[in-house]
Amino acid sequence: MRISESELIERYFIGRGAARAGDVRIGIGDDAAVVAVPRGCELVLTTDVQVEGVHFLKSAPPRALGHRALAVNLSDIAAMGGEPSWMLLSLVLPDARERWLREFSRALGALATRAGVALVGGNLSRGPLSITIALVGLVPAGKALRRDGARAGDDLYVSGTLGDAAGGLELLRRRGGISTAAARYLRRRFEYPQARVALGQALRGIASACIDVSDGLYVDASRLLSASECSATLELEALPVSAPLRQLCGSRALTLALSGGEDYELCFTAPDRQRAALARLARRLRLPIARIGTVRRGAGGLQLRGLDGKSVTQFSALAFDHFGVTQTGRSRRHRR
Amino acid sequence: MRISESELIERYFIGRGAARAGDVRIGIGDDAAVVAVPRGCELVLTTDVQVEGVHFLKSAPPRALGHRALAVNLSDIAAMGGEPSWMLLSLVLPDARERWLREFSRALGALATRAGVALVGGNLSRGPLSITIALVGLVPAGKALRRDGARAGDDLYVSGTLGDAAGGLELLRRRGGISTAAARYLRRRFEYPQARVALGQALRGIASACIDVSDGLYVDASRLLSASECSATLELEALPVSAPLRQLCGSRALTLALSGGEDYELCFTAPDRQRAALARLARRLRLPIARIGTVRRGAGGLQLRGLDGKSVTQFSALAFDHFGVTQTGRSRRHRR
Repeated sequence: MRISESELIERYFIGRGAARAGDVRIGIGDDAAVVAVPRGCELVLTTDVQVEGVHFLKSAPPRALGHRALAVNLSDIAAMGGEPSWMLLSLVLPDARERWLREFSRALGALATRAGVALVGGNLSRGPLSITIALVGLVPAGKALRRDGARAGDDLYVSGTLGDAAGGLELLRRRGGISTAAARYLRRRFEYPQARVALGQALRGIASACIDVSDGLYVDASRLLSASECSATLELEALPVSAPLRQLCGSRALTLALSGGEDYELCFTAPDRQRAALARLARRLRLPIARIGTVRRGAGGLQLRGLDGKSVTQFSALAFDHFGVTQTGRSRRHRR
Repeated sequence: MRISESELIERYFIGRGAARAGDVRIGIGDDAAVVAVPRGCELVLTTDVQVEGVHFLKSAPPRALGHRALAVNLSDIAAMGGEPSWMLLSLVLPDARERWLREFSRALGALATRAGVALVGGNLSRGPLSITIALVGLVPAGKALRRDGARAGDDLYVSGTLGDAAGGLELLRRRGGISTAAARYLRRRFEYPQARVALGQALRGIASACIDVSDGLYVDASRLLSASECSATLELEALPVSAPLRQLCGSRALTLALSGGEDYELCFTAPDRQRAALARLARRLRLPIARIGTVRRGAGGLQLRGLDGKSVTQFSALAFDHFGVTQTGRSRRHRR
């Protein structure tokens, strides 16, 4: 391999994505990028790393990785109500496989363009495959959504459907696999998550608190409640579960919807006077928004109410944690 | 190991560094950080990854890694004349060694505090050891230093001394090693690079172009000249070489000063009317600033003039490149 880092960057990364307003003063090619911030905006900053064998399977297609590496960061910006704007990419690769780079960078660039994000810098390095993106977004000053704003009496909501990504990951692990439309749908939900950026921005002024569902609804909703020093009752009947998940996972669908990670939907709370506004928003965005529970005063986390109206105590939801297992239910097991 | 990612983050990373003006609205613990940007400033954005076995030796002490991972990013911000402000950390670790984390995070935090940088977010993940930092700085609008501003007639400068880090790395590779003061000095220059942040900011309005010396003076000065569509003559006699490097590397000192990477000094150009201002600046910062050459019109890169006043053509300087070798001289070899 006789191609240099700067040649690879020029070939595959310069010009990827799209700045929204010509606000990139100096892009790739200097020591650092320089960008202009619109007046009245604060910055939203996040980063996420995807490591081979930890966050994705060795068989993962480069297109999915390019999409996913950005999508998980977009989801963090979405959960703050931010407008994603500029990104930096650190790509560690065992070798300079040009076909891999072409497919990866195309998918990354396509999602960046759709999201209005410009790739303004980064680096390529040799080493075990990992992808780190740092993403900078904008939010009107003081208007960011937070985790800690939920109040007693608020409704608890979640966007989209839950558990699909976990179902898709299970299917990807079974090599050979099923090729029905339902299976393709679930695999796609894992490989190509759709960050709810438009929803997040629309929730400014409506939601009282917000978090993205990356580690499973049970865990992430509990985090929101803990930050807000509240508890909540969640109606299992109200959980949005897709037809493909019911079809392929049957009775386990509800468990996956509660504890399966990586759906990258938004879980949020809002006062009940916002119900009509949220119904309109769901129609406008063509995205289901399900009211799944009610926030209550005091600690106690997330209580589940079953189909018969009785409290469910046997449910074991387990957070995925890279350094051990966070117990949130009664049993322990490693999700991967 | 039963400690969670969030516990580790709380124990070792929350509150590291220091925000300069209470401008962190939301720090670690939400989906993303939110920070306020002073009016009239543009953002300077950079990221750098350090991979075990590629950018540092397996034997590298965690303190040095914590320092170095931030220092290399500070150097990029310095080269743009920026004020480093907020950072995001992605740390990939084979396991949660608490002693390692303690030493790493202390060193990272100490340098961040000195540099006025707040750690506002990031993540820990399991995997082969690598450290990625994304650093955001501020610069008055339109005042960033660039690579492409050098003009014919400008002087060419470099800060500090050159080749020390390359000499230090050679010593670190020889296990057992020498323990003289000179050897300790060189090893320290590799392990604990000092980014020239104050110099970079002071050069706004003085320098016409600037780059940091990460891949060796010959390569980096050539990049600056290429971006500026100029060439230059460099006086070998004027190259700043430290006494420890001369002492331990003898006749190879000059080669290391030209081609050794990772010194993280600043190489810059300025019109000759700035000579007095630069002399004052060097005294104020207690940092040597050496005038090492003159910028000329047209392409042709960097010509070297030897001690006898004759042009040197046999010199082979080789850029370090993670994906091959960039030939800038006559021979090819892998630096690591």
